[in-house]
Amino acid sequence: MKKFDLNAIYALRRASLATWMAQEGIGALMFQDTEGMRTPNVRYFTGHPMDAMFVLTVNGSSILCPWDINLANIKAHVDKIIPYTDFGRTPIQALKGLLKILKVPQNSKIEIPSNTPYPQFLHYVDELADMQIICREKGSMTVVDSMRTVKDDYEIYCIKKAAAIGDKIIDIIEKDIRNGSIKTETDVALLIEKELRKAGCERTGFDTLAAGPSRSWGIHCFPGYTDGPWGTQGLSILDFGVVWEGYTSDTTLTVAKGPLTQEQKEQLELVEKAYKESLKFYKPGCKVSEAAIKADEVFASKKRIMPHSLGHSYGLECHEFPVMRSIGDNTTILLPGVVETCEPGLYDPKIGGCRLENDVLITDDGHEILTHSRIIKID
Amino acid sequence: MKKFDLNAIYALRRASLATWMAQEGIGALMFQDTEGMRTPNVRYFTGHPMDAMFVLTVNGSSILCPWDINLANIKAHVDKIIPYTDFGRTPIQALKGLLKILKVPQNSKIEIPSNTPYPQFLHYVDELADMQIICREKGSMTVVDSMRTVKDDYEIYCIKKAAAIGDKIIDIIEKDIRNGSIKTETDVALLIEKELRKAGCERTGFDTLAAGPSRSWGIHCFPGYTDGPWGTQGLSILDFGVVWEGYTSDTTLTVAKGPLTQEQKEQLELVEKAYKESLKFYKPGCKVSEAAIKADEVFASKKRIMPHSLGHSYGLECHEFPVMRSIGDNTTILLPGVVETCEPGLYDPKIGGCRLENDVLITDDGHEILTHSRIIKID
Repeated sequence: MKKFDLNAIYALRRASLATWMAQEGIGALMFQDTEGMRTPNVRYFTGHPMDAMFVLTVNGSSILCPWDINLANIKAHVDKIIPYTDFGRTPIQALKGLLKILKVPQNSKIEIPSNTPYPQFLHYVDELADMQIICREKGSMTVVDSMRTVKDDYEIYCIKKAAAIGDKIIDIIEKDIRNGSIKTETDVALLIEKELRKAGCERTGFDTLAAGPSRSWGIHCFPGYTDGPWGTQGLSILDFGVVWEGYTSDTTLTVAKGPLTQEQKEQLELVEKAYKESLKFYKPGCKVSEAAIKADEVFASKKRIMPHSLGHSYGLECHEFPVMRSIGDNTTILLPGVVETCEPGLYDPKIGGCRLENDVLITDDGHEILTHSRIIKID
Repeated sequence: MKKFDLNAIYALRRASLATWMAQEGIGALMFQDTEGMRTPNVRYFTGHPMDAMFVLTVNGSSILCPWDINLANIKAHVDKIIPYTDFGRTPIQALKGLLKILKVPQNSKIEIPSNTPYPQFLHYVDELADMQIICREKGSMTVVDSMRTVKDDYEIYCIKKAAAIGDKIIDIIEKDIRNGSIKTETDVALLIEKELRKAGCERTGFDTLAAGPSRSWGIHCFPGYTDGPWGTQGLSILDFGVVWEGYTSDTTLTVAKGPLTQEQKEQLELVEKAYKESLKFYKPGCKVSEAAIKADEVFASKKRIMPHSLGHSYGLECHEFPVMRSIGDNTTILLPGVVETCEPGLYDPKIGGCRLENDVLITDDGHEILTHSRIIKID
């Protein structure tokens, strides 16, 4: 592995957030990664990959409060680690205790995450009556979303590593589908699981979606994969990601096995054209809407509509801010260091679906395509 | 498949909830199963297994508002289906629109889920100013948790089906570990994935945890599985579930491959003893704490402590209410139709971990053990 000073990297992220806290007059903030309230923000600021609470003060002091202390001792880069069991395994008692240990003054503004359920928010207000509890839509979570949008060198290293491993798997899949050793959705999904582990990845970035010709019309097929045929005559879709040190890839390939109908061929061409045309707008200075509008135009020229966004950012989560779409928040500008998927797709209950998805890094002077998924055409 | 009238089953569940709504003076309620706010309640009341909003009125009328309309047309059992795209894909507009279609009178009490984030709650209050928005801790979510605790005949059928498929997989694993064809964590995890799909299951109930001897000391190992050895000399843990029509099993087996140390042998015996002794309290009328206190006693007799609860209910989720534990909400009484795991475990960084977990149905006169996981001892 390339050498990175992880202690320094996580400390820098925390310092950057503490600077924002000072501007906002926030004394301390808390993030919580637990069942029902998942966020990778705890991992982003500490490296700890599982259930935990994390508190940061405006002075830059931090404590991680993990469920699994042994794992934290191995993985976390943080000032202090205190086990959750010390606080009777209840989040409000944990926050109370951590603020005390960190000597946060009374009446400080304490920001809790914007995804805190309303009834729980009331408990925090009640139980921490000597503090000002803040829970707002455009607060700490939004700021961290923005921080996470522009990837740092270590993140780009991890993302490229995941992309390269995913690419190797795609090559194996193409070889195995051509030589006939992949026959079912399960075959291709398990090949991915096996190869990613061999390569040292943690897991898939999301449930692998492998849809053979009879069900590739679904944007997200249900169930994710079955023991039904895949890669047989018609259009098959495969959407998967592999995770390197928390960072996922996200790619979709289509296998088009002939003989194909004229309609199927036209659908493939249209998706490839939308992909090619919209990529031109993956560059610094472009609004996130521009590429999506271009894709919409390509599809509209043949009276087709894409039933989802053109792409999305990704990293510690498979869906991150900002989304590449023609409606809604059009004003976000692409910056160097942002990664976005480009994934035009068309779906038809009669002829099946086709999606082509790759991961794209915005660079100083354009973009770099990180993954090499494709439409695999077999006669 | 045994014949069940699914339309009648889902209608009965909705009628039961509407009765409670009438008592509470609630005009309509909403559940939402979306990224960041997952709940199986939408599936529980409609059968629809993916992203959607669901609204029920006190008169018993219901609408499902799914992301994927094609899937809903196949899977949902509900009065009416209206695509989410009709409301610009925003939850607040969807709720507003659905209440209008359902002709819910102005100033009605509208209950939204207790996991609604505080900032989003404020938006609902603001945008639905002609209604009384209610979001409370012990409201609709809690009532549905209670409903879901006692499984109906169809649910027990699904749970037994998942259990039987899981049992067959456990038998294959024992055979394959004894004949040497399983060598790694990946081998055993992928065997499960493959077999469950062959048997028509949807997916695993949670990320499979396969921990070989070098890392079985973790309650929940990270990552879930690697290409490292499994089933080799020492203690290996495997925790997995398979999902039949939404309902999961949840079992853990330990492979103990000799030669073992005296400490390892004693740990195995202690876990088996705790399992056997605590099972005596899996019967109607017992408090959920009783079995857990018994397990604690067994471990305390050898000065050991179990670092997690003894068990939990399960069904559409792998963790459901109530939890079998010695601390906290001790007053819940086991009833016929409740399913609970029994999963004592001990973990030691030096000698490895051991957990034995099976699924238990509380019956009229005791219990029925639904799964047959075990400690597999190999010389």
